[in-house]
Amino acid sequence: MRTGKGGARRVEIVGLRLPMVREGDDLAQLIVRAAEESGAGIEDGDVIVVSQVIVSKAEGRVVPLDAFEPSEAARSLAERTGKDPRHVEAILREAVEVVRVRGEVIITETRHGFVCANSGVDLSNVGEGMVSLLPAEPDLSARRIREGIRRLTGKEVAVVVADSHGRPFRRGAVNVAIGSSGIEPLLDLRGRPDLYGRPLRSKQICVVDELASAAELVMGNADEGIPAAIVRGYPYRRSEEGVRAVIRPREEDLFR
Amino acid sequence: MRTGKGGARRVEIVGLRLPMVREGDDLAQLIVRAAEESGAGIEDGDVIVVSQVIVSKAEGRVVPLDAFEPSEAARSLAERTGKDPRHVEAILREAVEVVRVRGEVIITETRHGFVCANSGVDLSNVGEGMVSLLPAEPDLSARRIREGIRRLTGKEVAVVVADSHGRPFRRGAVNVAIGSSGIEPLLDLRGRPDLYGRPLRSKQICVVDELASAAELVMGNADEGIPAAIVRGYPYRRSEEGVRAVIRPREEDLFR
Repeated sequence: MRTGKGGARRVEIVGLRLPMVREGDDLAQLIVRAAEESGAGIEDGDVIVVSQVIVSKAEGRVVPLDAFEPSEAARSLAERTGKDPRHVEAILREAVEVVRVRGEVIITETRHGFVCANSGVDLSNVGEGMVSLLPAEPDLSARRIREGIRRLTGKEVAVVVADSHGRPFRRGAVNVAIGSSGIEPLLDLRGRPDLYGRPLRSKQICVVDELASAAELVMGNADEGIPAAIVRGYPYRRSEEGVRAVIRPREEDLFR
Repeated sequence: MRTGKGGARRVEIVGLRLPMVREGDDLAQLIVRAAEESGAGIEDGDVIVVSQVIVSKAEGRVVPLDAFEPSEAARSLAERTGKDPRHVEAILREAVEVVRVRGEVIITETRHGFVCANSGVDLSNVGEGMVSLLPAEPDLSARRIREGIRRLTGKEVAVVVADSHGRPFRRGAVNVAIGSSGIEPLLDLRGRPDLYGRPLRSKQICVVDELASAAELVMGNADEGIPAAIVRGYPYRRSEEGVRAVIRPREEDLFR
């Protein structure tokens, strides 16, 4: 934690400009180099937030649409939603359940357990005729990047893989964490004293989602090529637990 | 927007330590003073994120539990959920609809249109025997603080009033915006080119929610007395539209 004059707590977020990522690229290396070029470098305790799309690219999860031969179900859903049948086929293959369909929107539960639009299968930022699928195991992707950074720099950081999700009740998407490593994803304040010394009863904060959202303040627009960020000065608890712990089991969910 | 070495985009978040807020306090004044004490001051283009609880306190929206004489409906729901019947009465009076009930959780739609736990009526951080209700018009609360800061400093800032909301599908709460002033709440990227020059088809980002989440990285724990933060270096569009624009109308919502 950094404190300035008057003991103020400060957090700094630095956007990292990376070259176009290709399959097989070493993201840890690209991130460390970009951090040096930014002047920020990498420090112990940094949280590195990485956009899903470059993780998918590096891991070979960007594939030609033509690889998805549409089933009958995909063709029918494509007609209903106005989507490319190959895109719908990819969405269905990545899903364990179609949760809602309306207009051109298909909400699914992915194999990881995320409830999101299109199983996270995206046509943007990947070039004509291609689709990006979510990383197969985003917590593992985060761990690999973290270990790579440790190997290259000797620094102990946390890594969050972020993707943009829509939400019920509120318009607009926000960045959330789909994978993490080296950080406790949920901060449990229950039992801590409130301002008046009474124990807090029900406060559990999803800090990895807040970090993902914070990082978007510098990553922002798709066309700027800033797919990663350093969040510096945020005091987190180390943990080997990943975003898997954030997924609310269906039986615990009031809106499924 | 700030850029460092190598043109990196940087955002800084500074927590503001305020004295205990009381009804009638001038939040703009307290914030300006805390900003000076932190060494950060106030600059044009800052986003000031303010926690709901101090806005409610300043506006006299923290009231004795005893003011809520429980109706029959409140008593019955209190029994079902194990809550104080007066708390439930306050929840019901602030709600236009009870959306879900399970265990001790009551999800309502508030008079503002927010779908959240307990109509945002909170027993924490307000002292024994008291409850805090959400500000009656949080966009207006934000505007008043913004205008107060302009009067005191001559600086043009944006203000976001933030509260902690749980979400479907994901565990843990995150800070979201319940009021805003001086900033376009939703950033519409639709039609902008992606990395390959193809137009983005469906990207609309709720930047006020991301700012609220980012600010919690420094506001954090209830017992630390950091109920406000400055987000500096984030390039936003000015607007007189508030968070009202973020509320998804029921008929547009797939999960109502």
